[in-house]
Parts: sequence; structure tokens; C-alpha cells
Amino acid sequence: MTPYEIISKKRDGHELSAEEIKYMIMGYTNGEIPDYQVSALLMAIYLKGMNAAETMAVTNTMLYSGEVVDLSAIPGVKVDKHSTGGVGDKVSIILAPIVAAAGVPVPMISGRGLGHTGGTLDKLESIPGFRVDYSIKEYEQKISEIGACLIGQTPDICPADKKLYALRDVTATIQSIPLITGSIMSKKMAEGIDALVLDVKTGSGAFMQKYEDSVALAKQLIAVGEHFGKPTLAYITDMNEPLGRTVGNWLEMVECFEALQGDGPDDLLEVTHQLSGAMIYLGKKAGTIKEGVQISKEMIRSGKAWNKFLEIVASQEGDVAMVQHPQHYPQAKYQAEVKSEQDGYIAGVNALEVGLTSVSLGAGRQKSTDIIDPKAGIILHRKKGDAVSKGEPLMTVFTDKEQELQGAVSRLNAAVTYSAEKPLLESLIREFIDKTKL
Amino acid sequence: MTPYEIISKKRDGHELSAEEIKYMIMGYTNGEIPDYQVSALLMAIYLKGMNAAETMAVTNTMLYSGEVVDLSAIPGVKVDKHSTGGVGDKVSIILAPIVAAAGVPVPMISGRGLGHTGGTLDKLESIPGFRVDYSIKEYEQKISEIGACLIGQTPDICPADKKLYALRDVTATIQSIPLITGSIMSKKMAEGIDALVLDVKTGSGAFMQKYEDSVALAKQLIAVGEHFGKPTLAYITDMNEPLGRTVGNWLEMVECFEALQGDGPDDLLEVTHQLSGAMIYLGKKAGTIKEGVQISKEMIRSGKAWNKFLEIVASQEGDVAMVQHPQHYPQAKYQAEVKSEQDGYIAGVNALEVGLTSVSLGAGRQKSTDIIDPKAGIILHRKKGDAVSKGEPLMTVFTDKEQELQGAVSRLNAAVTYSAEKPLLESLIREFIDKTKL
Repeated sequence: MTPYEIISKKRDGHELSAEEIKYMIMGYTNGEIPDYQVSALLMAIYLKGMNAAETMAVTNTMLYSGEVVDLSAIPGVKVDKHSTGGVGDKVSIILAPIVAAAGVPVPMISGRGLGHTGGTLDKLESIPGFRVDYSIKEYEQKISEIGACLIGQTPDICPADKKLYALRDVTATIQSIPLITGSIMSKKMAEGIDALVLDVKTGSGAFMQKYEDSVALAKQLIAVGEHFGKPTLAYITDMNEPLGRTVGNWLEMVECFEALQGDGPDDLLEVTHQLSGAMIYLGKKAGTIKEGVQISKEMIRSGKAWNKFLEIVASQEGDVAMVQHPQHYPQAKYQAEVKSEQDGYIAGVNALEVGLTSVSLGAGRQKSTDIIDPKAGIILHRKKGDAVSKGEPLMTVFTDKEQELQGAVSRLNAAVTYSAEKPLLESLIREFIDKTKL
Repeated sequence: MTPYEIISKKRDGHELSAEEIKYMIMGYTNGEIPDYQVSALLMAIYLKGMNAAETMAVTNTMLYSGEVVDLSAIPGVKVDKHSTGGVGDKVSIILAPIVAAAGVPVPMISGRGLGHTGGTLDKLESIPGFRVDYSIKEYEQKISEIGACLIGQTPDICPADKKLYALRDVTATIQSIPLITGSIMSKKMAEGIDALVLDVKTGSGAFMQKYEDSVALAKQLIAVGEHFGKPTLAYITDMNEPLGRTVGNWLEMVECFEALQGDGPDDLLEVTHQLSGAMIYLGKKAGTIKEGVQISKEMIRSGKAWNKFLEIVASQEGDVAMVQHPQHYPQAKYQAEVKSEQDGYIAGVNALEVGLTSVSLGAGRQKSTDIIDPKAGIILHRKKGDAVSKGEPLMTVFTDKEQELQGAVSRLNAAVTYSAEKPLLESLIREFIDKTKL
């Protein structure tokens, strides 16, 4: 078994054995196999694919490359949600306190934003003082005490995934369904869950723009989760427009505060309640997903979710007063408005364009070492289906980078499409997939 | 233009521009683009291919990455031959003095053996004292004085190819027709030729085992040569059996000495005369290839080729006395015979197996840093079509590695196939291709 033989085998479209996959991934992780051989293999995997057994072997190798958290001492069914990433996707931040308030422990290890999509950690860290770098021991303790903890990937969790992901990121091999599956599921299996809900985004602002790719990814993710004995459900949700009315870290947090206090936008709440409902069901606090959704709504109505969120903020050393009085947060230096170019209806606001523009404003990263400005971002006053008249403000742009302001306004202007008739508003929940559909 | 974008473009099967190809190859050569990005691109090229324009751009970039020799001060049409490599392929060593003796200058920059195929430089260096490391200035001078010079690739010739080839070698991306074409033709265009004859091997002992791949490669090579304004002809020749009766460096040299003195085996001479005939034709010392072949035979018959060879050896500081009295050369410590297992006819001796066995005996390299034993190798007493009786010696094996002896004999035994009837002997020249056939 040599790296050369393994590369050749995949290059020629053959199946790799679990031993060969482990040899390459661990050899790379341990520094014994050079990156240039692994990147050739990654491109061969990208172009030739991997079957279910190979995908399982990738997941398994990355999972056991590091620490696997054991939360069995905490009572209850521990359930997490994972999203494949989108623009304005702040669902985790609303959902974690809802589900925890409903009595289901939520162990959540999240990522940072990269490219046009935001990251839960960056959003949470826009709260002054909020920490996401707790040790696994502290993470366990907080879940046990509060019912939820939201942290970043520690160096002990899936080190092989960390190293491989960084290489994929610079070799144009991110978008491979088996590699995405391995990366997501190894981290989820490592964080100590008993069950998992997946939000697989589809559309312009998603990593998977084609619907059939999103479905294929969802099925692979479910197959791996179920293989590990963790009940796994997936929703394919629409990401052609940004989710909710804000894009940018603190702006999104403020929208979460409002949503948790009962004043969130319909599209954001639709997705949030569906996913929390499924989590509450998997956590055995509801007999059906539908009942779970009712409980989720009740958690907001009753104020329990908001209180749970404040508990989480306090537990993770965030500034609770700032969360309660967000008007005290520093403002971006520059603002500008994007105005409607015609009378009629908004037919859509392109999520990818909004995401990329938010990066230029300072709200995201082009490369992983870029520094984020939590104040930067975009508020969307009008979205698909809204009636507009010419000159009316559609969006407000926030940034400290004066030189980016005009370019952002032009780009966002071009991201809006109009129609004379009111467009049909469809549900963002495009499809539900579980193991019976594999 | 970023490496990431270029990798993605080829990954998705799109054509790269000449600027993009130059940016990647020169960026890598200059150390600005890391090997792991280039190896991902190489695998994408391997799997997605390159069209004629891209292949030209690869060749052009590698050619102008270094020095391009100008031999225009030397009178006559300078012609070289390139072989894609085989087992027992010592044609260059016989052909260079033939063609030079016929009055056509031969500028020849050759390679070393790697894997199962031998290399002209290693064979020449088995002559005590023979140097292949002359500077370009000395190379020019020797061609001017003697009519031929056989050297290795200097660091100034196609440095980009050198670096890229080393990376392809460890990432299983050697066998890509556009990359092979770029590698061969950039070096040939750099050595100062006016015209070129190609020997594209096909069969078990060739790098291209499939006939249609050999033809496709030949056509790409011709297209590039003609694009540079250098008349280029190609022969597809059979490499299912080793060429001639010896494999291993000094053994092959002795066979060359005999062939140059009129006592060479038919198969070796058939290929040699065809290729030298084509060179003499391209060098305008014959009106047709057929006439060139007649002149080639005459060069041997008259002793002019042998004299020219001795001149070349003297000019490149080789031990002429040893060439004239090869019986004084040191012998390998161990010898063994491979004996016929049955009565009948030899149906074939597998070239790949003979090549790989010769490497194990010390005659070749598994990796480029291995050291070669010039004495090691195999003499083939019987080949396809020869009648044999059980127990009769078919081959003799030479090595200093006692522990390899028995394994080599067994492996060679298994490499021989027999038939009851005398098999049909076909010409080794399978096809002639020129620009009219593109």
C-alpha cells in the first residue's frame, strides 16, 4: 500500500478500501504523507466520486482521528442541528434556546463564516465577551447545567478533518458530496449527539446550488448518521433569498433577539420552528414533528426561549445587558440605502450577491485569516412578494469601509429583480427526507 | 487570475487560456504557487484532458522557462529522434552515429531510465569515462566538430518541465497525453533541432500499452512539432517483446557495438534503419525515406557508422579501447540461466516483465535516486518465433545481487509464452504517421 497506488486506484475510478482511506488520511494528518499527494487524491475523489462504504470510511477515519465526546452522563436525548450554510442563516441561534427550553439538551459545535456564507460562531462572538472556546469539559458542564452550549471545533475534535478541509479549501475540492459528508458527519458524531436534524440549503446562496445535489447530499448525510445509530432527519430548504431581514453578524443577532421575543420575520420563523420541532420530536419531548413545532412556537410565546437564551449568554460570559439593550451597540461609520428602481413587486433578492456584498462590507471572510467587523452588514426592508414603489428604500448597508459603500449599493441594486404581478410565495421547506427515503 | 480559479476551471472541464497555463506552470517553477495546488490541477488535467491549444501552451511555457539552444550556426538540417521508452531500446546509440555519418547533424538530449524502461544516458555512461554532462556551449561545439553529441538535460533546459515531471511522478499523473506531449516536445524544441523523428512505442513494455493511446500521443507530438515549424514524423513500433537480445546497460552497449559492426539482431536493425532512414530524409541527405534507409544500411556496411561512433566516444571522453575490446569489462558476480519449459516455439517474451526483472537485478531504477549497476541485466538467446527444446537456455541473467537471482529466474520463466506452431512474425513497424494524417 503506497500513496501512489491509492491515488492511481481512485484516479481510475476504483473503490478504495477502508484501510487505504485510513492510511491516506491518517498519514496526512500525522505528517507522513505530503500534501501534494493528498491533493491529487482529493481531486480524483472530486471527479470520480466515492460510494457509501468509502464515505463511511472517510467519516470514521476523521471521527476517530481525535476525541469523541461522551455525553451519556447527561440525561435525555441530545440533539443538534446542522446547516450546510447560507446567507442570513441565523437559525441555530434561535433554535438552540427554543429546543433547550423544551427540555432537549443541545450540544452544538459550530463553524465560522467563509466566503459568502456566515458562521454561527462569528455571530455569537459579536456579543461583547461571548466565548466559544471552552474546553470539552466545560462544554459538557454547560450542557448539563443550562441544556445547551455553542462552541467552536476544539483542536481535539476531528484534527484530520481540520487539516483535510484546509487543503480542500485551496485545491477547489470542497464541493464533493462524499468529502462534505465526511467533514460534517465526523464533527457531528464527535460532539456527543444522540440524534441530528439537517438543514440542507439549496439555491443561489447555498453551497449546493442544484436541487438534486442538495438531495443527494442530504441522503448521504442521513445514511452515515443512521449507520452510526443516530436517528437523522433532513430538510431541504430554499436559500435563493437571504433568510430573514438581516445579513451581518450583530445585525443578525439583533434579529435573533427580536425573533426570540416574538417579533421575527415569517420566513426565518418558518424554517426555525420546523427544525426545532423535528429536534424536539427526536429528543422525545413530542410525539410527532408537528407537535414539536407547536411546542417550539410555545417556547417563544411563553418567553421561555428568550430566558433560556439569556441564560446561555450569561453562561458563555456574554454581555447580557447589551443583548437586552442592543441600541447601545456601536454603529457602523457609514450607511447607505439601496432604493427601488421601479414600481411593482420584488421578484427576488439574490442571496449569493447579498452574501458576497456583505463580505466586501467587512461582515465576512474571503480567506480564513480575514478579520470580521461585527457591525457591518445589510438590512433588507423588502423581500420577495413585497409591493414597492420607485425610490423606496429596499435595503440599508452598514460598513466602516467608506470605499466599499457605493460599490455595495450598485451590486445590491443589481441583485434585486422585480415583477409587475405579485409573485407566488412558496414554503421555504422544499422537502423532508428521512431514512425511509434513502 | 488565482490558482483556485484555474484549478476549478479545469476541474469543471473547461479550456484554460495560454495565460492561465503560463501563470500556473511558471508560478510553480518560481516557487510562488505551492505544489499541492499544482498537483490538484495535474489530476484535473489527467482526468479532464487538454485540447491542442492548451497542449501547445504547456509546451511553450516549459520551453521558454529555460534556455533554447540555437544551432543555426552549424550548417545542415539538424535532426533528432525521440523514443517514448521501452525495454532493450538502444536504438539512439546505433542511430546517432549512422545519421551523423550520413552527414546529418544529430543534437541529442536524452533521459535516464526510470521504472521498467532504460535510458540512453545510463547506457552510454556504462562506457568508462563517457561524459553526458557537457555545457550547452560544449554540446554545440561537439555537434559542429563530430556531427553528433549525446548529453543529458542541463539545469538550464526546460526547468519547468523538470519540476513538473517530478511532481507528476509522485502524484500518478505521468500518463496524460497532453502532459507527456508538453514534456517531450519542450525538451526537443529546446535542444536546437530543425526536424524530429518520433518512435512511439506500443505494447506491454511501452508506457502507452493501448494502441489507440500511442496513435493519439503520436498525433499530438506531431501537431506540436509542426506548429513550431519543425517537420515531425512518427512511427508506432511494437514493444511487446524487448528490442534486440539484451536488456541492461553494458550488455546493451555491447549489442550496439556488434550492430554497428554489422552483426545486430533483425528486430533491432529493422527499427533502427527505419528511424535513421527517416532522419536522413528529413536531414535532406536522401530524397525519400526509403532511400534514407538504404543510406543507413550503407553506413553500417561501410564501417562509417562504427568509426563515427568511436569518434563520438572519444569526443565525450569515453574509453575507446574498452569499446573495441568489451571482453575486458568487469563481469557481474552471479549468472543464471532461464531454461525452456517445453518443446515448441516461443510465442513471446513479455517486455514489461523483463524490464521489471532487470530493475530488480540492478540494471534500472525504482526511484530516481537509485544507483545503477552497469553490469546487471539479461541476455535473451531466444525470442518470438524461435524453435526451442525443453531445457535449452532461453535467457542468461547477470547480477551482483545474489538474493535476487532465483526470483529473477522464476519471474522470467513466467514471462515466456510458448506455442506448438511457429507464430507469425510481423514487422515491428506498426504505423507511419505524419502531418497529413492529423
